Amino acid sequence: MLKLFVAKGTCSFASHIALQEAGIAYEAQRIDFTKGEQMAADFLAINPKGRVPALVTDRGVLTETPAILAYIAQSAPEAKLAPVDDSFAFGQIQAFNSYLCSTVHVAHAHGRRASRWADDQTAITAMQAKVAKNMGDCFALIEKDLFLGPWVMGQAYSICDPYLFAIAGWLESDGVDPADFPGVQDHMKRMEERPAVKAVHAWYEE
Amino acid sequence: MLKLFVAKGTCSFASHIALQEAGIAYEAQRIDFTKGEQMAADFLAINPKGRVPALVTDRGVLTETPAILAYIAQSAPEAKLAPVDDSFAFGQIQAFNSYLCSTVHVAHAHGRRASRWADDQTAITAMQAKVAKNMGDCFALIEKDLFLGPWVMGQAYSICDPYLFAIAGWLESDGVDPADFPGVQDHMKRMEERPAVKAVHAWYEE
Repeated sequence: MLKLFVAKGTCSFASHIALQEAGIAYEAQRIDFTKGEQMAADFLAINPKGRVPALVTDRGVLTETPAILAYIAQSAPEAKLAPVDDSFAFGQIQAFNSYLCSTVHVAHAHGRRASRWADDQTAITAMQAKVAKNMGDCFALIEKDLFLGPWVMGQAYSICDPYLFAIAGWLESDGVDPADFPGVQDHMKRMEERPAVKAVHAWYEE
Repeated sequence: MLKLFVAKGTCSFASHIALQEAGIAYEAQRIDFTKGEQMAADFLAINPKGRVPALVTDRGVLTETPAILAYIAQSAPEAKLAPVDDSFAFGQIQAFNSYLCSTVHVAHAHGRRASRWADDQTAITAMQAKVAKNMGDCFALIEKDLFLGPWVMGQAYSICDPYLFAIAGWLESDGVDPADFPGVQDHMKRMEERPAVKAVHAWYEE
């Protein structure tokens, strides 16, 4: 059975929802970042990067949200979470998720994890000060150029949707008003209504 | 025919090599970053992010290196650039490329493009000062945990190889000695010998 390592408030929420949507048998295991469990030897043996998500399969471990999401979509074709056999349409999905991973998530990370990129406290404060602008710019681009609606890729729900949802959930704490992006805000409401999202929320409250 | 927008010294080098390896008909077009061509209206109409690579196909534009590389592999199955029908093996390739995109490329970008993440010159200088350490840490992880050798994924050359090659080419200017990573350094030499790499180098010298 697949096992997904997750941590509250992280992008692992996207893979967690996708597994639930896919209807694949899986279990989720929480890593407590407040206790530094992501750097414990037993977790580093699973993911030497010390990050979540990490998906343990019977063939080995997969890391990185875009890779895990694509794997879930390919593993559950009946759930139609991505047009995996249409190289262009699949490429569009990968492009969207790659943008979230390499630009939007990174923009957010300069708030809480700025010390990755500079040691100096003044620099860390300067990075934190620019998070709201950068996240706002990213979501302006998403709203205007990337998000088709009602789902990210248009009429078909896909692995882009839980990923956008996970990251959009950071906007308020990053100092950005989701109401500035009506398409994204509607999307968040629509996501909250999905049984898979309710199930994952409930799991966290157990 | 596919058209790839590239710029010298950028990660677009990876997609350029992959197209050459794939044996697909394509043309490459240079965007001159020193003239700010990536922000010109005609290029922004192609890629509103103002970045390369951008791959124009007969169905639309694809962006983001991991997405373009996967598209190329899926479009030229005979070139065997990725095991696209094996969801786990393909997932490993996507995970590697996603790590390059979201962590390693980002570590490098804090040298030349630190102003993305802070406006203050002191902060920019502090970010630049940490690039060598972060790139060294990334390549230590690659060498120890991710790179199988002789190619990234072991015996089979894949879309991971041109991407690693493109990014490893930045090490020296980032203040990291490639000799610290013998597997990666051998890989660079092996890549330089490939006809596809020689062809792309020659194109840049035209």
